[in-house]
Amino acid sequence: MIVVIKSNASPEKRTQLIKWLKSMGLGVHESAGEFQTVLGLIGDTSRVDMDLIESLDIVDSVKRVSETFKCVNRKFHPEDTVVSVGDLKIGGGNFVLIAGPCSVESETQIVEIAKAVKASGASLLRGGAFKPRTSPYDFQGLKGEGLELLKVARQETGLPIVTEIMNLKDLPLFEDIDVLQVGARNMQNFDLLKELGTLHKPILLKRGLANTLKELLMSAEYIMASGNEQVILCERGIRTYSDYLRNTLDLAAVPMLHELSHLPVIVDPSHATGIARMVPPMSLAAAACGADGLIIEVHNDPAHALCDGAQSLTPAAFDALAKKVDSVRKAVS
Amino acid sequence: MIVVIKSNASPEKRTQLIKWLKSMGLGVHESAGEFQTVLGLIGDTSRVDMDLIESLDIVDSVKRVSETFKCVNRKFHPEDTVVSVGDLKIGGGNFVLIAGPCSVESETQIVEIAKAVKASGASLLRGGAFKPRTSPYDFQGLKGEGLELLKVARQETGLPIVTEIMNLKDLPLFEDIDVLQVGARNMQNFDLLKELGTLHKPILLKRGLANTLKELLMSAEYIMASGNEQVILCERGIRTYSDYLRNTLDLAAVPMLHELSHLPVIVDPSHATGIARMVPPMSLAAAACGADGLIIEVHNDPAHALCDGAQSLTPAAFDALAKKVDSVRKAVS
Amino acid sequence: MIVVIKSNASPEKRTQLIKWLKSMGLGVHESAGEFQTVLGLIGDTSRVDMDLIESLDIVDSVKRVSETFKCVNRKFHPEDTVVSVGDLKIGGGNFVLIAGPCSVESETQIVEIAKAVKASGASLLRGGAFKPRTSPYDFQGLKGEGLELLKVARQETGLPIVTEIMNLKDLPLFEDIDVLQVGARNMQNFDLLKELGTLHKPILLKRGLANTLKELLMSAEYIMASGNEQVILCERGIRTYSDYLRNTLDLAAVPMLHELSHLPVIVDPSHATGIARMVPPMSLAAAACGADGLIIEVHNDPAHALCDGAQSLTPAAFDALAKKVDSVRKAVS
Amino acid sequence: MIVVIKSNASPEKRTQLIKWLKSMGLGVHESAGEFQTVLGLIGDTSRVDMDLIESLDIVDSVKRVSETFKCVNRKFHPEDTVVSVGDLKIGGGNFVLIAGPCSVESETQIVEIAKAVKASGASLLRGGAFKPRTSPYDFQGLKGEGLELLKVARQETGLPIVTEIMNLKDLPLFEDIDVLQVGARNMQNFDLLKELGTLHKPILLKRGLANTLKELLMSAEYIMASGNEQVILCERGIRTYSDYLRNTLDLAAVPMLHELSHLPVIVDPSHATGIARMVPPMSLAAAACGADGLIIEVHNDPAHALCDGAQSLTPAAFDALAKKVDSVRKAVS
Repeated sequence: MIVVIKSNASPEKRTQLIKWLKSMGLGVHESAGEFQTVLGLIGDTSRVDMDLIESLDIVDSVKRVSETFKCVNRKFHPEDTVVSVGDLKIGGGNFVLIAGPCSVESETQIVEIAKAVKASGASLLRGGAFKPRTSPYDFQGLKGEGLELLKVARQETGLPIVTEIMNLKDLPLFEDIDVLQVGARNMQNFDLLKELGTLHKPILLKRGLANTLKELLMSAEYIMASGNEQVILCERGIRTYSDYLRNTLDLAAVPMLHELSHLPVIVDPSHATGIARMVPPMSLAAAACGADGLIIEVHNDPAHALCDGAQSLTPAAFDALAKKVDSVRKAVS
Repeated sequence: MIVVIKSNASPEKRTQLIKWLKSMGLGVHESAGEFQTVLGLIGDTSRVDMDLIESLDIVDSVKRVSETFKCVNRKFHPEDTVVSVGDLKIGGGNFVLIAGPCSVESETQIVEIAKAVKASGASLLRGGAFKPRTSPYDFQGLKGEGLELLKVARQETGLPIVTEIMNLKDLPLFEDIDVLQVGARNMQNFDLLKELGTLHKPILLKRGLANTLKELLMSAEYIMASGNEQVILCERGIRTYSDYLRNTLDLAAVPMLHELSHLPVIVDPSHATGIARMVPPMSLAAAACGADGLIIEVHNDPAHALCDGAQSLTPAAFDALAKKVDSVRKAVS
Repeated sequence: MIVVIKSNASPEKRTQLIKWLKSMGLGVHESAGEFQTVLGLIGDTSRVDMDLIESLDIVDSVKRVSETFKCVNRKFHPEDTVVSVGDLKIGGGNFVLIAGPCSVESETQIVEIAKAVKASGASLLRGGAFKPRTSPYDFQGLKGEGLELLKVARQETGLPIVTEIMNLKDLPLFEDIDVLQVGARNMQNFDLLKELGTLHKPILLKRGLANTLKELLMSAEYIMASGNEQVILCERGIRTYSDYLRNTLDLAAVPMLHELSHLPVIVDPSHATGIARMVPPMSLAAAACGADGLIIEVHNDPAHALCDGAQSLTPAAFDALAKKVDSVRKAVS
Repeated sequence: MIVVIKSNASPEKRTQLIKWLKSMGLGVHESAGEFQTVLGLIGDTSRVDMDLIESLDIVDSVKRVSETFKCVNRKFHPEDTVVSVGDLKIGGGNFVLIAGPCSVESETQIVEIAKAVKASGASLLRGGAFKPRTSPYDFQGLKGEGLELLKVARQETGLPIVTEIMNLKDLPLFEDIDVLQVGARNMQNFDLLKELGTLHKPILLKRGLANTLKELLMSAEYIMASGNEQVILCERGIRTYSDYLRNTLDLAAVPMLHELSHLPVIVDPSHATGIARMVPPMSLAAAACGADGLIIEVHNDPAHALCDGAQSLTPAAFDALAKKVDSVRKAVS
């Protein structure tokens, strides 16, 4: 950690600060310049409150030079993590299509969609049973019943399932679910993350509405630090002043997360744009910039979907898209 | 709800849409213009998926004309809600100073601060026992022990206490806490909100990192729709591209929330700016624009605080501030 | 335009508003509902101040149903506009690579780079002569001399040139320039836009730092309304709270702008990310989602570039990228 | 400047970087740590491209420790700048109310408003003659004629006038104007700033739509570096995802700008909120947190104003507000 001291700081205050820093067990290396004095702090600075030091009168600025994330950091783990779901592999060159409805609505619906997306090349089935909704008056999902219907669809198709968990207390219901999703609104529900860190199954972690890449990685760090190394990161659009699109899909996050971390990174173009006809171009773009997978909403009858029908592809549109995604992946490999 | 149909829509598709809307039990009032046809939907449109209709080929745009929030809405409840904590009142002209440390650290610390802030005019004591932290390696609070220390401080001073609950499963520990705080990162933890809606004690609901006023009100609606009408809204700064301040304190939210809702609105200038010396001017500004209270971090030894020392006032600074806040309130009343 | 009147509005005030609206020459169609009365305004509402009406006590909300942009609107001009630069065509299926240094620095530099990028498939040469810089102490470009050097490079290679104009008074210097660029900071310099609208040469209009798509289209409308139909839109990243990247590249803007407007849309991945190694993946993504071209910074010696060396590709990296872009375009066509 | 080198950098590359830095005339002070090597660069680093160094493979991060702004910096100029307009003073404890219509519309209008706002305590008259409008079809101002009408109002009332200049070529028309305003959209029109720097009259510089405080100060630096020290900074709201307000008024910018710079800082609550009834509370808040003045839109007939009527106060509302602002200023002084 580097602390820059203002040029007009009194020698007494400077000495006092250095003494205090040393009292925390840190080595302090001082180098005086014309306009500033720079202190280099050596030792375990992870418990030092950077903001506090920065707020001192005599301090100009503070910079942390060692990373605050460890487990997720590519520096300390140069090879790509490959997440396994049964025989299926995600990351490290293994690309995956995840597809299914926003919400599970009925057995017929989920089985029919599961069969269709499998035929088009999807290798994981998505579907919401517990639904986080901005309004208490909106459809909140079939909950436990929805999870059972997902399992039926898995049995019929062999597709492993991924679905969102909103609350620790629901955890027992998810025992037989293949991949647990943490939604954008729960990205910083730290108790949930810690608990998921004790499981032995993959976690799909969505970036929060307005979270930075560092915060996303720190949330993944919560899971990994608790012992679970099977984390999949997901970019799903961030909140800006966008006028015609629901969120702003931050595709540059894909190569940047790959540089910072060894974890697989997938993209959700459905929630990012909120408009079905924007899903194909953004899916192709995600594949082109190196995403390890796509999670796409598909509904057999978007006009009657109980939620987010606007952003759902029909099975036919998904089929056409899957083929193009494949072509793009070949073109960039 | 108003649906605007594109001028080039075929009569067949228009008829089909109208038929479908009627099948949902809605009355449809059609008025044709030169460039567009406007449909007015009459009946309970709260279950109609606006995004889905907007995504249809023939639809230009959709507008909801009835409010999606009911319980929190000033339209249906014109008088200010006054929240009671024992004898203490908040809202409807009753202004409250809430003060205390970011984290409870020890009995001496919390009792000493409680006495100091009470002497300066605070009428509620704040203090974190369960701390949401971006990094798993940062201090996470004294948890249950912290709650007990808060109660000791309450006994010593008579100040009711407000502290954050992060997780449903901790609820039993909060039975004897006066006001439960929902932190910014949990503003859309809907299961938590629903459960808090079943309690008979005040909830202090903080605006999320990047949430709109409507989303804040919808989260309050979750609590109220479950039966708890004692909700206090709190503006605490939102995320932008700000360079010198942690967040951007959105003070215009205060008069706007007062216009939209009958609930009391308080301001947290400590988390909004992250810098102790910015807290006094922003506290005065909040009082000037009509806030019903302030929640301010005070620490007897900011330099050794276990978290957020940078944004904590000393008791002396808080005392001076309390006097000025009082003067400003008199000036604007 | 639709005006929604509050349910508690007095009949007198409602009558007064309707009278006032009629006094502006508008037809007013009233339809009363249980909770609101909706007024449909018929006639030329383009001069009606929507914000003013919305601010009236008795008005709940206002919605404009006809588009405010005309010339740029695909509704009134369904075919793609194809912009011509000599024999070169941009848009309507014609893809173009624009490449060159951030700043023109010397004859050797610009000629060498021009030859290299032409060999790799670029069909337009970019290079800054007038440079907008945040700091007055940063290199501001070679100005007139830079324009002359660009012309030398054009003569040597046959590549038409595109360069930024910052100021109306410099216009005479740009007479022999092929394409004039309006930079992000000047997107709403309306006097400049109007003047460029009187020229008979293509204008490359960059999206502003934090402008919406509608604002970008309205700025293009300024140029087109003045008579110049040769406008190329350019997405170059928008300002958010991004931590590891300079801006957030909003690639979904590409298909959305194509839907809203008939103008060609190109992408600048260099300014969007600010990091050379992010340029290839984002270029491929842009090509995959339908961009009509790319504008990429290339420098023969990035380490000694006078500005933005960090985001410049070497000629070799550009050559490799050009080939991949071509593959991706084939894959999605 | 501090350069942090990655731990896995090869000694050859590190030596090469140090050699290159020295070739730019810099002293390099190396201090090796367990995980990183930190280089301290000594000398004139203002011409060093920080982004370029940061982009090198072996570099982890770069930090500038000396300020990039000089003239505007309070470090080098601790006393408040007091801007003079004739006998009127702004800053350094001198508070000023600036009021008037969005647009000058007629002699009667501007003279009547000028008299009214003077009677209520305004000491400067504002009024737009050249209007930047998002749409080319909106009213663009009376231009030269508007300037003449402002002068008539000045003659009638003695109030000095402030009005916006959009373009260098209009400069001769502004010779007899007291204070020139640079609008938000022109904050980074650097040629305009440079030219205004050569004048001997005060410049009111508005913060751009989405500009940081540093960028605002750098734009002021452009003016001051060209010789004009009479700069007034103006916070007018920034762009966010706000739903009920036009912009987000960033009031914490007031004390922060006062800390960073010696220049006076005023606030525009009219453009920040876009709603007349939000102007009084936000004006009081601005006064409470130390603003040196307010610039407020006042119109004698808001319902017929040619622009921004929605955000204009009536003279009576302004009169009431002026009295309250005065009370708040006394309360905080």
